[in-house]
Amino acid sequence: MAKEKKLVEAITSMNEDFAQWYTDVVKKAELLEYSNVRGCMIFRPNGYAIWENIQHELDRRFKETGVENVYLPMLIPESLLQKEADHVEGFAPECAWVTMGGNEPLEERLCIRPTSETVFCDLYSRIVQSYRDLPKVYNQWCSVLRWEKTTRPFLRHMEFLWQEGHTAHATAEEAEERTIQMLNVYADFCEEVLAIPMIKGRKTDKEKFAGAEATYTIEAMMHDGKALQSGTSHNFGDGFAKAYGIQYTDRDNKLKHVHQTSWGMSTRIIGAIIMVHGDDSGLVLPPRIAPTQVMVIPIAQQKEGVLEKASEVYESLKGRFRVKMDDSAKSPGWKFSEQEVRGIPARIELGPKDIEKNQAVIVRRDTREKIVVSLDSLADELEKVLNTMQKEMLERARVHRDTHTYTAKNWDEFTDILENKPGFIKAMWCGEQECELAIKEETGATTRCMPFEQECISDVCVHCGKPAKKMIYFGKAY
Amino acid sequence: MAKEKKLVEAITSMNEDFAQWYTDVVKKAELLEYSNVRGCMIFRPNGYAIWENIQHELDRRFKETGVENVYLPMLIPESLLQKEADHVEGFAPECAWVTMGGNEPLEERLCIRPTSETVFCDLYSRIVQSYRDLPKVYNQWCSVLRWEKTTRPFLRHMEFLWQEGHTAHATAEEAEERTIQMLNVYADFCEEVLAIPMIKGRKTDKEKFAGAEATYTIEAMMHDGKALQSGTSHNFGDGFAKAYGIQYTDRDNKLKHVHQTSWGMSTRIIGAIIMVHGDDSGLVLPPRIAPTQVMVIPIAQQKEGVLEKASEVYESLKGRFRVKMDDSAKSPGWKFSEQEVRGIPARIELGPKDIEKNQAVIVRRDTREKIVVSLDSLADELEKVLNTMQKEMLERARVHRDTHTYTAKNWDEFTDILENKPGFIKAMWCGEQECELAIKEETGATTRCMPFEQECISDVCVHCGKPAKKMIYFGKAY
Repeated sequence: MAKEKKLVEAITSMNEDFAQWYTDVVKKAELLEYSNVRGCMIFRPNGYAIWENIQHELDRRFKETGVENVYLPMLIPESLLQKEADHVEGFAPECAWVTMGGNEPLEERLCIRPTSETVFCDLYSRIVQSYRDLPKVYNQWCSVLRWEKTTRPFLRHMEFLWQEGHTAHATAEEAEERTIQMLNVYADFCEEVLAIPMIKGRKTDKEKFAGAEATYTIEAMMHDGKALQSGTSHNFGDGFAKAYGIQYTDRDNKLKHVHQTSWGMSTRIIGAIIMVHGDDSGLVLPPRIAPTQVMVIPIAQQKEGVLEKASEVYESLKGRFRVKMDDSAKSPGWKFSEQEVRGIPARIELGPKDIEKNQAVIVRRDTREKIVVSLDSLADELEKVLNTMQKEMLERARVHRDTHTYTAKNWDEFTDILENKPGFIKAMWCGEQECELAIKEETGATTRCMPFEQECISDVCVHCGKPAKKMIYFGKAY
Repeated sequence: MAKEKKLVEAITSMNEDFAQWYTDVVKKAELLEYSNVRGCMIFRPNGYAIWENIQHELDRRFKETGVENVYLPMLIPESLLQKEADHVEGFAPECAWVTMGGNEPLEERLCIRPTSETVFCDLYSRIVQSYRDLPKVYNQWCSVLRWEKTTRPFLRHMEFLWQEGHTAHATAEEAEERTIQMLNVYADFCEEVLAIPMIKGRKTDKEKFAGAEATYTIEAMMHDGKALQSGTSHNFGDGFAKAYGIQYTDRDNKLKHVHQTSWGMSTRIIGAIIMVHGDDSGLVLPPRIAPTQVMVIPIAQQKEGVLEKASEVYESLKGRFRVKMDDSAKSPGWKFSEQEVRGIPARIELGPKDIEKNQAVIVRRDTREKIVVSLDSLADELEKVLNTMQKEMLERARVHRDTHTYTAKNWDEFTDILENKPGFIKAMWCGEQECELAIKEETGATTRCMPFEQECISDVCVHCGKPAKKMIYFGKAY
């Protein structure tokens, strides 16, 4: 009884305290649990199942573009990490170091991978010899570890799960093409499956990946107006190839350096799903990513024939949907709350009166709309409901983002928006890092990206007034 | 040209030098590559794809029994590891220790998981309160690290990939049932998918898992007669529950300790696939686990119509089989060797004369049998060939094992078999660890398991002559 009470306790309202609402949802939907190592989280079944679906769908899309999966060691010798100067500078402060193996101190300490560019480069330097060995389009699913000071469920763990793609190409053009191709795979996946619209663009030099020539990003807006960088794709040019000696003999018999890319998406994206779609009752999962899409809940199940009919309904849906039935001893109201907290997209209510009328009630998680349907066409109607829900969730997210995106022609407008209207700001920028840093220091807003779709909002930089070079998205970010 | 020559160089014959044959196959089939951390291997696409198929099939079988997947942190605080005395004694010498995070020394050193009993126990102690929370049937797919002195491709890496299931139950009976259930899942998977027959049994106390009450194992015989422990399932009783304080309130309102199990299968099983089925031309993969089941190889592909017809054939098979086409500029002979080294179960040869006769030639990888079939019934015939091959591979492995399994009534017979006939020895044992240790010391043979199917070979222990308690399998092992 004590436990039941705990669950039905209201989740903090998102308008009251968005951060607390987020933590409550993560906890009450049983997605994560704290571990006894600071900043390392336990993915519970409800949370991990979302990641499994993400993996399954992304992996399929990767393989359609020719990606092959591999697995490389988690330990990186310090000397290997140090070969590319920008890269080591970016990552060394975040490394966890293994200094003892068994009971012996090690001659060289080993870092737990914070990312695997260095090990992939080392591999490529050994297995790439000729143009016939190119391209190499490898990816690995693994965990990485970064010694972060502050952590937050899904958004920033010390250890998190991700995929990291690492490719090697004969030409700069091919590398650039692959970089953009994978950014598009991410953006399409997020829109089509997670119902999250993305802004695609390029990071400024300040914000790019340590060692990259160019970093591209997809940026999403959370319900509170903040930005979440949701996936990145980097073009390394031949910088790493030079540092790690990755050369191939070309058709013209000359020795050349390869051009490389890397791209990653992590469990952080689950944070985006929560913060884009969730509501005060908990998680709301888009049907295409939900581990359970439908929960069948019998009403007055002690009455004759109800459980039998509910089982029949469950069986009839099983092949076509990810469906479960809750025939536990809990009250229907309690079951509804549980299904809602966990974000299961639809429930089917079925009671004695429904059975009499040969009908069932489908309840949408997002709108709470109740749809009475004949049992004869239940599966087809359910599919329609889920498809509509998927489409409308994307549409709502897009409208929310667009209505919370503002343009600022000058510094007054910029600061006014920042103070009063949470969201994105489109503004012009002179291209100087000094200006970018000053904006961040003065307001806390960072450059999110230079979007592929440029507009001309003004001729001058929103901060310094010098001639503008790029339209840029600014925002506060997770 | 230099590269082509290297591949067609003969793989060392298995009769000449089995260990070298094994290393050659791993290397030439491009399954693994050495990394620059001793004992850590790189899983290349051909090797990792086998693991992906194993994961996919095992995971499906797990979930059918109610398993839920989770992910727990890779770092374990030393104090947590130390709570169960036998367990820490077994694993502490194999731990890699993280002592620095960022640039700061840690107050308590952290071990990279060699296995995760301790973290699962810690989780269960926090999330299990009532009998309603039981059973917990969790599993995770991850990598683990053990600081091994000697390593060998697939069979013993410092870091390897595996799954580890960890469960908590209300009663001892339920725990024992789950332990055996998962052992059977492993054995069925190995027989049905990997075509490897297994001997199921219980480990002696000396060979059981550190902290377990009972360890069950599946043991396979390699082509050289040695044993490979291929999967284990442990019943922990309530030992860990007592050490980690995992208690629940039962229906009778009394506080009780849970009963636990754990079970694992790792990438080591890929070593078994190689050593059970491989031959002097390389890998031979059972069709059900092969990442590519069929390679279409056009003959005289420069001739008109050949490539078009081959593509047509390829397209017609694509939905039904994991098929690839090799239309590269290499010679057919070269393509055959590559397909054979990689163990692709069947190739389809298609040349101008075949096209004229509306036929193709299916060549089985295991027997080299050539089967001429009409193009009209190619897919159906191919399916028959693959099914037959799968069945016959299992049958051959079973015959090989059975003809290399001997019984020894006394010590003379035992030592004679060990010296002259590689394989398993069935013999009686008194049940004393002293005797088990003496046998190992004198002969190098270890107890593989006390099989579920017991026979009475003699009334006395094969070594000491005291009354026998159990029939046991002995063998030299990897």
